[in-house]
Amino acid sequence: MQRPSNPTARTRVAVVGATGYTGAELIRLLLGHPQVQITGLVGHSSTGQPISELLPSLRGWIDMEVEPFDPHAIAKKADVAFCALPHGASAAHVVELRKQGLVVLDLSADFRLREQHTYESWYGAHPHPEYLEQAVYGLPELHSKAIAQSDLIAVPGCFPTGAILALAPLVSAGLINLQAPIIVDSKTGLSGAGRKARTAIHFPESDGGIRAYNPLDRHRHTAEMGQELGRIAKHAQVGGKTAGVDRLPLVFTPHLVPMTRGILSSVYAQLISQTGSDLPGDPVGKCVAAAQEFYKDFGQVAVHPSVVGKAPPCPDTLWVQGSNQIHISYAVEKAQAGNATGIVLAQSAIDNLVKGASGQAVQCLNLRFGWPQYTGLDRAPLWP
Amino acid sequence: MQRPSNPTARTRVAVVGATGYTGAELIRLLLGHPQVQITGLVGHSSTGQPISELLPSLRGWIDMEVEPFDPHAIAKKADVAFCALPHGASAAHVVELRKQGLVVLDLSADFRLREQHTYESWYGAHPHPEYLEQAVYGLPELHSKAIAQSDLIAVPGCFPTGAILALAPLVSAGLINLQAPIIVDSKTGLSGAGRKARTAIHFPESDGGIRAYNPLDRHRHTAEMGQELGRIAKHAQVGGKTAGVDRLPLVFTPHLVPMTRGILSSVYAQLISQTGSDLPGDPVGKCVAAAQEFYKDFGQVAVHPSVVGKAPPCPDTLWVQGSNQIHISYAVEKAQAGNATGIVLAQSAIDNLVKGASGQAVQCLNLRFGWPQYTGLDRAPLWP
Amino acid sequence: MQRPSNPTARTRVAVVGATGYTGAELIRLLLGHPQVQITGLVGHSSTGQPISELLPSLRGWIDMEVEPFDPHAIAKKADVAFCALPHGASAAHVVELRKQGLVVLDLSADFRLREQHTYESWYGAHPHPEYLEQAVYGLPELHSKAIAQSDLIAVPGCFPTGAILALAPLVSAGLINLQAPIIVDSKTGLSGAGRKARTAIHFPESDGGIRAYNPLDRHRHTAEMGQELGRIAKHAQVGGKTAGVDRLPLVFTPHLVPMTRGILSSVYAQLISQTGSDLPGDPVGKCVAAAQEFYKDFGQVAVHPSVVGKAPPCPDTLWVQGSNQIHISYAVEKAQAGNATGIVLAQSAIDNLVKGASGQAVQCLNLRFGWPQYTGLDRAPLWP
Amino acid sequence: MQRPSNPTARTRVAVVGATGYTGAELIRLLLGHPQVQITGLVGHSSTGQPISELLPSLRGWIDMEVEPFDPHAIAKKADVAFCALPHGASAAHVVELRKQGLVVLDLSADFRLREQHTYESWYGAHPHPEYLEQAVYGLPELHSKAIAQSDLIAVPGCFPTGAILALAPLVSAGLINLQAPIIVDSKTGLSGAGRKARTAIHFPESDGGIRAYNPLDRHRHTAEMGQELGRIAKHAQVGGKTAGVDRLPLVFTPHLVPMTRGILSSVYAQLISQTGSDLPGDPVGKCVAAAQEFYKDFGQVAVHPSVVGKAPPCPDTLWVQGSNQIHISYAVEKAQAGNATGIVLAQSAIDNLVKGASGQAVQCLNLRFGWPQYTGLDRAPLWP
Repeated sequence: MQRPSNPTARTRVAVVGATGYTGAELIRLLLGHPQVQITGLVGHSSTGQPISELLPSLRGWIDMEVEPFDPHAIAKKADVAFCALPHGASAAHVVELRKQGLVVLDLSADFRLREQHTYESWYGAHPHPEYLEQAVYGLPELHSKAIAQSDLIAVPGCFPTGAILALAPLVSAGLINLQAPIIVDSKTGLSGAGRKARTAIHFPESDGGIRAYNPLDRHRHTAEMGQELGRIAKHAQVGGKTAGVDRLPLVFTPHLVPMTRGILSSVYAQLISQTGSDLPGDPVGKCVAAAQEFYKDFGQVAVHPSVVGKAPPCPDTLWVQGSNQIHISYAVEKAQAGNATGIVLAQSAIDNLVKGASGQAVQCLNLRFGWPQYTGLDRAPLWP
Repeated sequence: MQRPSNPTARTRVAVVGATGYTGAELIRLLLGHPQVQITGLVGHSSTGQPISELLPSLRGWIDMEVEPFDPHAIAKKADVAFCALPHGASAAHVVELRKQGLVVLDLSADFRLREQHTYESWYGAHPHPEYLEQAVYGLPELHSKAIAQSDLIAVPGCFPTGAILALAPLVSAGLINLQAPIIVDSKTGLSGAGRKARTAIHFPESDGGIRAYNPLDRHRHTAEMGQELGRIAKHAQVGGKTAGVDRLPLVFTPHLVPMTRGILSSVYAQLISQTGSDLPGDPVGKCVAAAQEFYKDFGQVAVHPSVVGKAPPCPDTLWVQGSNQIHISYAVEKAQAGNATGIVLAQSAIDNLVKGASGQAVQCLNLRFGWPQYTGLDRAPLWP
Repeated sequence: MQRPSNPTARTRVAVVGATGYTGAELIRLLLGHPQVQITGLVGHSSTGQPISELLPSLRGWIDMEVEPFDPHAIAKKADVAFCALPHGASAAHVVELRKQGLVVLDLSADFRLREQHTYESWYGAHPHPEYLEQAVYGLPELHSKAIAQSDLIAVPGCFPTGAILALAPLVSAGLINLQAPIIVDSKTGLSGAGRKARTAIHFPESDGGIRAYNPLDRHRHTAEMGQELGRIAKHAQVGGKTAGVDRLPLVFTPHLVPMTRGILSSVYAQLISQTGSDLPGDPVGKCVAAAQEFYKDFGQVAVHPSVVGKAPPCPDTLWVQGSNQIHISYAVEKAQAGNATGIVLAQSAIDNLVKGASGQAVQCLNLRFGWPQYTGLDRAPLWP
Repeated sequence: MQRPSNPTARTRVAVVGATGYTGAELIRLLLGHPQVQITGLVGHSSTGQPISELLPSLRGWIDMEVEPFDPHAIAKKADVAFCALPHGASAAHVVELRKQGLVVLDLSADFRLREQHTYESWYGAHPHPEYLEQAVYGLPELHSKAIAQSDLIAVPGCFPTGAILALAPLVSAGLINLQAPIIVDSKTGLSGAGRKARTAIHFPESDGGIRAYNPLDRHRHTAEMGQELGRIAKHAQVGGKTAGVDRLPLVFTPHLVPMTRGILSSVYAQLISQTGSDLPGDPVGKCVAAAQEFYKDFGQVAVHPSVVGKAPPCPDTLWVQGSNQIHISYAVEKAQAGNATGIVLAQSAIDNLVKGASGQAVQCLNLRFGWPQYTGLDRAPLWP
C-alpha cells in the first residue's frame, strides 16, 4: 500500500531513537518526503519488534523492525542519521555516526551550546567537547548558510525555537532595550515532556490543571535562548550604535498545559521608544515590519499584521497542529490612560514536535542537501 | 511558498460550504492532492473575506476569498464541486451544480438513502427526489465501481462509515445471526457536532464528561446503516442459503466524548456459531479472515489479527488523527466459564472528519476520475 | 484552620493506602464527615512524609504523616479502617485488621465474590478464603441490612456499581428476558486506572482518543455483575413465575475516555414485551416506575422520568463530579418504522471515585454505624 | 433527602442570575452553608422552569422554580441577594435591591472601581455612580473590616483576585521596585468565559490549544489590579520612606487554557534588592515571610515556603478544584551564572468560580454577618 519508505529516493536515512515522540514524528514526516528513503529504525528496549506494533498509528505505513544501535550497520544502509535521544545519551551516538561519515541531525541538547563551559554549567561534563566546534545550531531562520555546509546539525530545543523566533527580529532591528529584563513565559503541551510515563504527566494529574516548573532560570533551555539572542544582540544597531551586548537579562518560565501538542511563547520586553501603539511612531507596526523583513525568505513564518481598529492578533497553537509553521504577532499597550510601560509582547505559536523538533530537523536536512527547505513539510496543519 | 492550490493540476474543484469543519478539512486535503486545483470556495455568511482570516490555520497555505453560491460562476471555473452543507440545505445546491454539469460529491445526507420514503420518514419531505436514483452511496469499500461511474456521489455519514465497515464482512460471510439484535454503540469526538456554537458543545459543558444522545433508533444515521447492511445481508450466504433478509434488527446509540476528532464504533452482534474463541472453530479468526478478504483491495483498511495468548486488539482513535485509515478488530468471549453468549464485538476507529467525511469524499473523487484511490490521502496520521 | 480531622467526633478511622486516588478521595470525604475523626494514614512507599506534601490539594486541610502498616498501632488509635489497596495485596491487610477487631471497609476486589472458585477463576488463589463468608457486598441499594450488621464490608467495583444499579430494577421486576444477551458497554474516566504512572495513561497517549480494553468477558468486574444480577434474577418474578436463573448471559466491555472522573454505563437488554415506547404498554414507563420503586429509600439515586414528546433523558457524567449520586435513565425504541428489537437501554452516570469507590465506602460506614446513610455525602456535585 | 435549602437557617438568600456558572456555583455553595436558606432563584430567559431541569447536576439537591426579577417579591422572602449578572446589566438590579433594603453581594464589575471616571474609561457610562461610594471591594484579605460593615459588596474579578493576592504582600512590605514594569500573565480555564455559547469557546476550537486575548492593557480587569495594588503601594514603606505611589506600571495578559476551572496567575516584578536566592539576603525567604505575615488571619491562603535544595514550589490549579483556597508561591533566580535580573515570580492558583467568584462572595457574606469567614467553604478540594 503506502510506501514503507520511498524505495526510489536516493538519500537513505536512519532514525535513532525511533520509538519516542520525536522519533515517531520524524518517521511520519520522512514517510512523506519525496527525496528520502527510511532505511533504518534504531531503538533501545524494543529491538526486534515491528515499529507498527510499537506505534500502531504507523500500521499500514511502514513495516520495519527496530534494530539495536550499531554504527557500522547504520553506515552501510544510511547516508544520514537523525538522533532523537535524551541529552547526555545522544553525544556518544552522534560521535560514532560522525566517525562513520554520516551526516547527523541531533535533536538532543548535546551540541546546541557553542561554549563547553556553558554546556557544563547546565548539563554537567560534556562527553565530547571536541565536536562542539563543528556543530551548527539548526535554526534555519538564523543559520541557513551554516546549516547547508555542516555535517553535524544540533536541532534547537522546542522552547528556544518559539521564544527566539518571536524576539529575534526586534533585537536585530534595535527595537528593544537590551538592559531591561526580558521575560519569557512559555506554555507547552505535554508531549514536550517525552514518552516516559511518570506521575507528573499521568492523565488524571495533568488534565484540567495548569502549572509552571523550573521557573526563571532553572530550565536548561534558558541557555540556548541567551546564546542565540545574544549573538544577534552583539551586532544589533541600537540608536545608531552597535549594541555589543552578548548577554541579555532574560528569565524563562515554562508551563505545562493540558493538551498534547503546541507551544505558545509569550515574550515580554521593553521597547526603546516607550510610546504606545496609538501614538505617533506606531511601535507595533515597526515590530511587524522588522519581522516581515527578517523572515522574508521563510514562507512558513506567518507574521500577523496589526490591523487598526481591531484587537491585536494572538496566535493559537491550534493553528499549527502537525505543521512546521510558526505564527508570530506583536502587541503594545493602547496606553489610553497614559500608563505606558513600554512593554512589547512578542508571541509565537508552534507545534513543539514539528517546528519545535522533528519538522525543524527535516527543514535542516533539506537545507543541508540543497532541496527546497520545506520539502516534505508542505501539508497544511490539522484543524480543528 | 505553499501552493495556494496546484496551479498546473488539470482538475478544478470548488468547495461549497468551505468554512465548516468538513469544508476546512476538504481544503486541507485538496491542497495536498497532486491532481486537483482549488478554484473556488463558497460560503454563506462570510463572503468576501479571505479564507485565511476565517480559518487562520490556512494562513500561508491558501489565499482565496469566500464567494457566494452562484452555480454559473462555479461552473466556469470548476469541474467538480464538493458540497459540505447541512442536510436539507444541500439538495438544492447539488441540483443546481448538477444542472451545470459538474461532478458533485455531496457530504450531506440528502442523497444517501435510496428510497424516498425512507428519507422522508427521517428527514421530512425531500426537495429533489428525482435525483435519488442517479446518486451513489459513496462508500468505496462497498461501491467502488458505481462510484467510478457516477456524477452524484453521496458521501456517507460518519457513524455509518465506522459501523458498516466493521460489520459488513461478517454479514457478507454469513457469520452472524441476522435475526438477533445488532447493537451499535458509537463514541464520537465533538467536531462531529459541527461548527455552530451551542451550549451542548460549549467547552465547560463538554470537557470532563461523556453522555449519549438520540438513543437506539432516534439518530438519522440509523437508516444508512440499515440500508447498507441490509443490501449485503440480502445476498449473504448463511448456512448454505441466501439470507434474503434486507432489514436488520439494529439499534444505534451515539455518545459524545470530550475530544475533537475520532469515532470508535462498537458493534455487538451474535455469531451463527456460539462457540468461544478458545474452543475449536476459532470464530474470531474467521471474522478476521473474512475482513481481510473483504478489504483486500483497500490498503487503508487495517484489520488487526487476533494473536494467541495476547489480549484482543482494540483500536484507538488516536491512531488515525488526520488520516483516512480505518482500524478494525474483532473479539469474542474467552468463555472459560462456559458462559458464552455468542456475541462478537466488531470495533472500528476512524477520524470522523477524514474517513468519516472529507477524506472519504476525496477517495470517491479519486475513484471517479480514475486516479489511485488514496491519491492525496497518503500521509501517515498525526500521533500523538 | 480547617479541621485536621474532627477532634471531637467519637469514631476514629484510619485509611490504609492513603496516597492513591481512592485513598485521597476517602480523606476528602471523611474530612467533611461530622461523626468521624481521621486518626491514621497508612502508606507504603512514602512513610514519614506529611500527607499534604504527597497530596498538595490537602495542604491546609489535614496535617498528618503517612505511617507504615502496623495493625497493632492502627488498632490503638482507630475503630474503623478503610483499605484502599490493590486486589491481592489487600486481603492480608484486611485480615490483620479484622483480627485486631476493627471494622474494615475494603475497597479492593478481595472479598467481593461470594464463591471462592469464582474469585480464583478470575484472580488466582485467594489468600484468605475463610473470610469470604463474613464479608458483605457493600452495595447499599441491594444489601443495606447486611451492611449494617457486618464488620467486613467489600465495597463494590466502580463498573459493577454503575451497571448493576442501572439494570437491577428491571431484573427484579421481571421486565427483561433473562435468556437474551445483556451487553454492558461502559465508559470510564482515567482515574479509574489508578495512580501508578504507565504509558497507557500517559497524557499524550490518552488525551484526544478513546479505546476499549479487555472486551466482552475479560475484565474481572464481569464476575461481580454476574453475581449480583444473578442473585436478583434468582428471585425475580417473570411472567408470574420465579425465574430461578442465577447466571445471566452478560458481556462487559470497558472503554477509556479522556476525562479524569466518571463512568457512564450503557446496558442493553431485551424487554420481555417487545412493544415500542409509543405503543400501548409504555415499556419505558414501566422501567422508570420499577426503578423509582426499587430506589424509593435512596435519595441519591436520581431516576429520570421519560417525558412524552421529549427526547429520552441521557445522563451525563458531568452531573455527578465529586458527588455520591447516581443518575439513571431508560430508553426503548420509538419503533415508528416497525423495526422494534425489544432492546431497552439502561444508562447510569456516577463519579467512579465517589459512588464507584470512596463515597460508597462512606455510605456503607454510615449504615454500619447507624448514621443517616448520606452523612458526610451531603454536598452537591461540582458543575461545570 | 438532601436539603432543598436549610429550612431552619435564619438568613434567607436569593440568587439573581441563577443559571449561569457563577449562579450555579453560588447555589452549590449555599446549599452547604449552615446559616442560610435559599429562598429565591431569579433568572431571565428560563423563568418558570425548575432549576434542576436547567442545571441537572442540582437534581435531588434543590427543587425550586426560576422566577423573574421582581425586587418587591425578593424583598419579601430574602434578606440578602447575590447578583450574578453581566456588568452593565447588574447595576440597575443592585440598586433596586438596595432600595428594598437587602444586603447585596454583586459579582459583576459594576461597583468594583472606586472612581467613576476609571469605570467609565473601561466600561462606558455608569448607570448609578451615586452608589459607588457605599460599595466595598470584596477582597477579604484586604478589606475585611469594611466588608463587615457594608451593605453593598462588589465581589472582585477572577483575574484580579489571583494577581492581587500573589503580589500584595510584596508591595506592602516594600520589597519590589514600584517604578519597574509589573507583568501579569494569567492562564484561565474556560468557565471564566461564561455560559453563553460562542465559537471561541466551542469545544473543537478550544480543546488542544492555548491562546492569549486582550493583551497588555486591554482587559478590563487591569483596572482593578491597578486600583487595589495602588492603594497598598501608596502606604507601603520602601527603603524607610512611604512610597506614595498610587499608579503601578502594570500590564496584564490573560490566556485561555483548555480546562474548565482554575486560574494560574504569574506575576513578574523586580525586587528592590537584585540579589539572587542563593546569595546572602534570601529574597525569596523575605517574600514568603511577608506573605505569611500578610495572610496570618486567613487559613485558606496557603503560602508555600521555599525549601533549600529543592526546586521552587509551583502551585497547580488542580489543587483547588471546587475550593475557596488560594495557593501562593515565590521564586527568584538562582543566578548562579551571575545573570540576575532581580525578577521575582509571584504565582497563585485559584478556582476561578470559587475564590475567583462565588466562594469569595460567600466569604464576604460570612464577614458581613459575623460568621466565621469560611463557613460553608469548609470542604477540601476535589482531586484529581
